[in-house]
Amino acid sequence: MSTPTKYDFGMIGLGVMGRSLLLNMGDHGVKGAGFDKDASKGQSLEQESTNGNLKGFSDIKEFVASLNTPRAIMMLVPAGKIVDDVIEELLPLIDKGDLIIDGGNTFYTDTNRRFDYLNGKGIHFFGMGVSGGEEGARRGPSMMPGGDKDAYNVVKPIFEAIAAKVDGEPCVAYCGTGSAGNFVKMVHNGIEYGVMQLLAETYEIMKKGLGLDNAAIEKIFTEWNEGRLKSFLVEVTRDIFRYKAPGADHLLLDDIKDEARSKGTGKWTSQVAMDLQAPIPTVDSSVAMRDLSKYKDLRVKAEGIYGGVEGKLDVDTAAFIKSLEEAFYFNLIISYAQGIHMLTRASVEFNYGLNLAEISKIWRGGCIIRSLFLQNIYEAFSGNPELEHLLLDNGVATEVKGAVGGARTVVSAITAAGIAAPCYTSALSYFDAFRSGRMPSNLIQAQRDYFGAHTYELIGKEGTFHTQWIPKN
Amino acid sequence: MSTPTKYDFGMIGLGVMGRSLLLNMGDHGVKGAGFDKDASKGQSLEQESTNGNLKGFSDIKEFVASLNTPRAIMMLVPAGKIVDDVIEELLPLIDKGDLIIDGGNTFYTDTNRRFDYLNGKGIHFFGMGVSGGEEGARRGPSMMPGGDKDAYNVVKPIFEAIAAKVDGEPCVAYCGTGSAGNFVKMVHNGIEYGVMQLLAETYEIMKKGLGLDNAAIEKIFTEWNEGRLKSFLVEVTRDIFRYKAPGADHLLLDDIKDEARSKGTGKWTSQVAMDLQAPIPTVDSSVAMRDLSKYKDLRVKAEGIYGGVEGKLDVDTAAFIKSLEEAFYFNLIISYAQGIHMLTRASVEFNYGLNLAEISKIWRGGCIIRSLFLQNIYEAFSGNPELEHLLLDNGVATEVKGAVGGARTVVSAITAAGIAAPCYTSALSYFDAFRSGRMPSNLIQAQRDYFGAHTYELIGKEGTFHTQWIPKN
Repeated sequence: MSTPTKYDFGMIGLGVMGRSLLLNMGDHGVKGAGFDKDASKGQSLEQESTNGNLKGFSDIKEFVASLNTPRAIMMLVPAGKIVDDVIEELLPLIDKGDLIIDGGNTFYTDTNRRFDYLNGKGIHFFGMGVSGGEEGARRGPSMMPGGDKDAYNVVKPIFEAIAAKVDGEPCVAYCGTGSAGNFVKMVHNGIEYGVMQLLAETYEIMKKGLGLDNAAIEKIFTEWNEGRLKSFLVEVTRDIFRYKAPGADHLLLDDIKDEARSKGTGKWTSQVAMDLQAPIPTVDSSVAMRDLSKYKDLRVKAEGIYGGVEGKLDVDTAAFIKSLEEAFYFNLIISYAQGIHMLTRASVEFNYGLNLAEISKIWRGGCIIRSLFLQNIYEAFSGNPELEHLLLDNGVATEVKGAVGGARTVVSAITAAGIAAPCYTSALSYFDAFRSGRMPSNLIQAQRDYFGAHTYELIGKEGTFHTQWIPKN
Repeated sequence: MSTPTKYDFGMIGLGVMGRSLLLNMGDHGVKGAGFDKDASKGQSLEQESTNGNLKGFSDIKEFVASLNTPRAIMMLVPAGKIVDDVIEELLPLIDKGDLIIDGGNTFYTDTNRRFDYLNGKGIHFFGMGVSGGEEGARRGPSMMPGGDKDAYNVVKPIFEAIAAKVDGEPCVAYCGTGSAGNFVKMVHNGIEYGVMQLLAETYEIMKKGLGLDNAAIEKIFTEWNEGRLKSFLVEVTRDIFRYKAPGADHLLLDDIKDEARSKGTGKWTSQVAMDLQAPIPTVDSSVAMRDLSKYKDLRVKAEGIYGGVEGKLDVDTAAFIKSLEEAFYFNLIISYAQGIHMLTRASVEFNYGLNLAEISKIWRGGCIIRSLFLQNIYEAFSGNPELEHLLLDNGVATEVKGAVGGARTVVSAITAAGIAAPCYTSALSYFDAFRSGRMPSNLIQAQRDYFGAHTYELIGKEGTFHTQWIPKN
């Protein structure tokens, strides 16, 4: 038997993301081995690889044996128990000093646990968020590694080669210690949920509020993507408003069920934000609306009782579309601001040492939430790494002040007309609450003390106090 | 040594709730023993007990030995590890067949775990939510037991005696299997969070929007509590708007910090609702606002940049207050509807077998969210135990239709004026989304398939589909 070729990088899981990333590596001269239990996936990998750099395996022992040591093995498998199973399968086959990378949407505490476990066995391990979907993975994703920095540095050249580039700089950077990579990616996905829901609500407003047809809506998204709203998700939406199935006379979109599914990263973001006491109501609202969409039967019954949404707006269409563009811009900024505030809080809580300038820099290209506005965010945090909240940056504030008027016009009009746009409304009320030096939350302190003797705090006085608000019976 | 008196009921933890409940039992002729490590608490219990029915202990062995067998021991200690510690302390001292009741705000999965653990040792155990705060516990709380029904039946007479009464019926009833009691109480608290935030926002609208002074606000809450909004939390708020500290010339409320604290049950409700895919955006918004209130420094800075909320409304005050009453009524109904929908989902998911007529019945008195409107809810579920969503009940729909106009007027006006009322806005947008037979969520399905190949579903066709939305590069 001849000595087989040795490979520099191993990928476990040849689904959409794993296969695309490995093909991307092959394009960049990396000799890569791919493993999938489904042998056909390895075969099609080899067929698609035009330069012979890639090899598919369906036997894990052969796969591991084909790798140069110290081995670098990346998993792109569904988050959860499968990741543990793969690790257990690998452990008898690999050696101390080898490296395992989890590229999936793993919950951050799982990454912490696995790091401790593998560290104890002398295996390097880190979690890395990968964003960009199929096309991003294939042509240039945004990647968010965290944890073992020395281990990352070993494979850094490979990831920098395959990453998306903006101004010649790769969209990959070490995010921070521990599970920072997975955490940053989770928040990325939370922002993604929010912006997707904002786009759906924009569609609702244009369709039901302005009575626009799909062609007119397509035209607006096309224009938006040529201006300051330029972003991957607006581009995606524009393309969807162009797509008809072969032979069809109408958009495929019209035939799709209005029941959105989800894989859970948006939900996690909201749940964890609540643990961190970092409010991100735009994400919360987007999660609530994905969930509500699933109750189709109830919604149809409710429409029967209350009448459907048909609140044609009594407005000048052209002027309102201008307000809508401002409102969307405002919403987009608020969405990023909330997500980044959550990262700031997490960095303190978990000692991640997050570098928000670097994170916004690598989000500018390759990932699902890439947009022109991320350049503003990058500049805000480059100029002031200690910035406590994006909305407190002067440059961002100028943008917000210029756009909030449109948000008020839109939300006020759709509310009166009965058009549902929960992310539009929650972004604006978050902003109004955030700029309240004095909130009405003193009443909540008083209520809690009244019925639960939970005590309250006084302005300008140390300590907590309790009052018998009414005479005892 | 003489044989000491034997007691029928033991209470561990003589804080606000445990002490008040035990005093309530003593009033109803129950011979009760109270344990607290802090001996002064047992002493003051005995002093407050006027009929000699109660005895305080600070030695757990003496406490346990003082109880008739099979023993009934209730814990009212902070949720979490302390509950486990108390159980471990009790185990060597008690016998098979004894009963432990957890009356705290315990997370429902902990109750399931403890049930299994104690069941394996022959100890009966159930969790029971107790609501009403100090005064409720002392004079008549609402109680939500679940789990071991036979065990509950043993102590049922005691709880029925001390419970609040509405129309002569006690506000305590077996809620369902497993951890149903703690779960129902958790959702109760979630609704409570929402209504408290709605009251705070009402205060904000009256103060900043209408420019009303505290006396005028007190007058409105007084009137509201004499009409269909009659409820404990409106009453509490009214009283707070009456209270001046001895010698002070202004309300204590004005001196309290606008940073609301929380113990976590509202947060849990939102987090679990997301797991159950049961949208409860009113609770989510109230949690977000409690969290936002804590960032006082950021808010003050933001007010410096963006200007504060001072949006004096250009409206007829009397007419607007009428709209505000309608809006609050609408919000109250939506809050209950969301919480109860969550219970419906949990009942399916966890096989609780919840009886929503019984639950709304026992919420009519004693608990923090008691209100006149709970009678409507009780009637809705009595008339149709299979009701899928409160908003689909005809009687409730009549109320909603009569009130939604006021909600639209208020939300539209405050949005334009820049007054933050996130729970007002989220309740209305939930309603508008809920009555959408067709939501715009088809776009989200299309987006997910576009960039992540997550597939989509078609109207009237089985299966999932994937499309290459744009030509591959």
